[in-house]
Amino acid sequence: MCYSVDEMRVLREDYRRTLLDEIAPFWVRHGWDREHGGIHTALNEDGSLIDSDKSVWFQGRAAWTYSTLGQAYGAEGDWTRLAGSCLSFLREHCRADDGKLYFTMTREGRPLRMRRRYAFSESFACVGSAAYAQLTGDERAALEAMAYFERYLEVMRTGGGVEPKVEVATRPMKGLAPQMILLAMAQELRADLGDVTVGGATCTQWIDRVIDEVETAFLKPDLQALMEVVGENNEVLDHFDGRMLVPGHAIECAWFILHEVRVRGGDARLLKLGLTILDWMWERGWDREFGGMLYFTDLKGLPVQEYWAEMKFWWPHNETEIATLLAWHLTGDESYARKHQQVREWSRKVFVDTKGGGDWFGYAHRDGRISTRLKGNMWKGPFHIPRMYWYCEQLLAERLRR
Amino acid sequence: MCYSVDEMRVLREDYRRTLLDEIAPFWVRHGWDREHGGIHTALNEDGSLIDSDKSVWFQGRAAWTYSTLGQAYGAEGDWTRLAGSCLSFLREHCRADDGKLYFTMTREGRPLRMRRRYAFSESFACVGSAAYAQLTGDERAALEAMAYFERYLEVMRTGGGVEPKVEVATRPMKGLAPQMILLAMAQELRADLGDVTVGGATCTQWIDRVIDEVETAFLKPDLQALMEVVGENNEVLDHFDGRMLVPGHAIECAWFILHEVRVRGGDARLLKLGLTILDWMWERGWDREFGGMLYFTDLKGLPVQEYWAEMKFWWPHNETEIATLLAWHLTGDESYARKHQQVREWSRKVFVDTKGGGDWFGYAHRDGRISTRLKGNMWKGPFHIPRMYWYCEQLLAERLRR
Repeated sequence: MCYSVDEMRVLREDYRRTLLDEIAPFWVRHGWDREHGGIHTALNEDGSLIDSDKSVWFQGRAAWTYSTLGQAYGAEGDWTRLAGSCLSFLREHCRADDGKLYFTMTREGRPLRMRRRYAFSESFACVGSAAYAQLTGDERAALEAMAYFERYLEVMRTGGGVEPKVEVATRPMKGLAPQMILLAMAQELRADLGDVTVGGATCTQWIDRVIDEVETAFLKPDLQALMEVVGENNEVLDHFDGRMLVPGHAIECAWFILHEVRVRGGDARLLKLGLTILDWMWERGWDREFGGMLYFTDLKGLPVQEYWAEMKFWWPHNETEIATLLAWHLTGDESYARKHQQVREWSRKVFVDTKGGGDWFGYAHRDGRISTRLKGNMWKGPFHIPRMYWYCEQLLAERLRR
Repeated sequence: MCYSVDEMRVLREDYRRTLLDEIAPFWVRHGWDREHGGIHTALNEDGSLIDSDKSVWFQGRAAWTYSTLGQAYGAEGDWTRLAGSCLSFLREHCRADDGKLYFTMTREGRPLRMRRRYAFSESFACVGSAAYAQLTGDERAALEAMAYFERYLEVMRTGGGVEPKVEVATRPMKGLAPQMILLAMAQELRADLGDVTVGGATCTQWIDRVIDEVETAFLKPDLQALMEVVGENNEVLDHFDGRMLVPGHAIECAWFILHEVRVRGGDARLLKLGLTILDWMWERGWDREFGGMLYFTDLKGLPVQEYWAEMKFWWPHNETEIATLLAWHLTGDESYARKHQQVREWSRKVFVDTKGGGDWFGYAHRDGRISTRLKGNMWKGPFHIPRMYWYCEQLLAERLRR
């Protein structure tokens, strides 16, 4: 069975060194806004600022990342201060009068955009606050994490209290994304605060509910696919949106489920479910011609509405790298180690900035040529990449300890 | 001076034949929904239907296209019936209770999506109704064209009566697109119904107002660019959105202005303005490495937020082909004929379906490889391509007659 102990040591060291020497410092050095607080993510390839507007998602995400690194590798001062600065920026500037978080802000903290129908800002604020609370013992952050979680549930239940989209009546739909985010939030809250009760259930109960819904509503054994969207009776909607698959996203869901197997010390049903999703969506996403994970594919192999469907984004590769390593860890099945190596090599070849500008590029054409040389924007910042390095390093460390 | 009379004859015949033998029949054969009325645009490369949902924009656009072809080449029965069918579908199904048009509908005509802040559906319904009224003498269509025009003005003035986006207070912005659409609508209304008064001004007055605003607010001589967005005091906004240029869109604006020169039988100021926009935006848009017009570029050459910025879309090539031919026609300047030939050759090589499936592909990677093989979706259908073939054919015919 590959990997050997020696190979694991080398791999682990590579994850650790790249994370601590290159990825984590890049955003501390270039992203942290020491004047106004919080973090900038719109950075050019050399780390220079190309847009001073701030992503609200990334205040929570960066708080999570640097608090998590602090938990794993020791609370280095800058990491804790950066995480705290992001949470302060959220608290002081990013809340509308009714408490709902905005989506983007000016550098100084004036609101630019609100997306009332969505609660992704809340979800990242939740995990950032929880991880920070665990790192520092900050009671207020722990309470805020719970409050963000409850807000998330409320928005999910009420649609943000805004007039529903027209299609809600004509063609009711359910999405995978809100379920997955809920799963990740509940796992993080439990890891940091214990299996607390929030919104009327324990974290573990939320996790079980979500996984049941994923299996019942979105997994289609006859089609060998995990859908992104289904109808109200879990039916496949034979339209562009309904047929659209996002293999990297489904594989992220797979590793959240496999992580649950790891946490529980084994669970045959969840193991089978996570592996099934990973296997099917690897088949649907891996590009046999150019390598890498395609961004969108169509359930029936028809053209996808989005003209960038063929592109290669950094994050599906991060998710696939975690999922395959974790699958190998849980099963010892060599084929997962091979896939792990395959996605790792392809993504390093394509996304790593060999000129040493720091962090990864994010967007490549199908053939692996980089399509934009920025290192961050409102969607790319210190999250998927450090999470991958950290998760894989910790998993290998755990394995090597045994 | 190229083109010679013989070259013009060959070119004109090519435009005419391709339009009448290939482009126009494709959508009559595959798009027209003879059962429920109106037109489908989500077609695969062989014309088969891949999504039965209908674009409201394209009900108006197809009505315009087939009415315009009817005016130019004789009211062939199917063209008139298809145009009429699209207008009936609009009238019977696409209006909400308050008269506002939806954005997408089911095949049968049930509403899927409303975009209350925008009036692009109205603008295309306006030009479709006006062209149909001119073709058939249908009085109701003429009145509806005027009503859609007024509705457009109202949405532009009131923001659709919905709560303004947060950024309106923090960072007020003005866009080029609504101005350009107003210009095109006023030109079309005048061509079909005469220089009528609508919304308190004649069509020509609206045209003059818009061109003044384009020149005053969006043209930046010190930067040699036509902006897509400016601040409330016409200032450049140094953010992703504010710096983003869409050369194909600006060049479309250039030819609307040059068309005004053609209609007025000469106008030195407008000629200079139109040529200036064309020259500057060609410089910013033409890809010297791979050929073709880049979709988005950044005012300062920084990375663009949109990861598909480098892609090549069909329609900027259509607009550039019209603009360069028209510029050559108005000036006799050979360099425009050369550019016309350049964009024509590149787009035919890249977008034409050599297997004879009909119409063009729409989306290519930067290097010209097709990125999705569909022939239509909610944004691509019978509009830019037939408009280009028709406009260039008519322009060459007019020139050959002299």
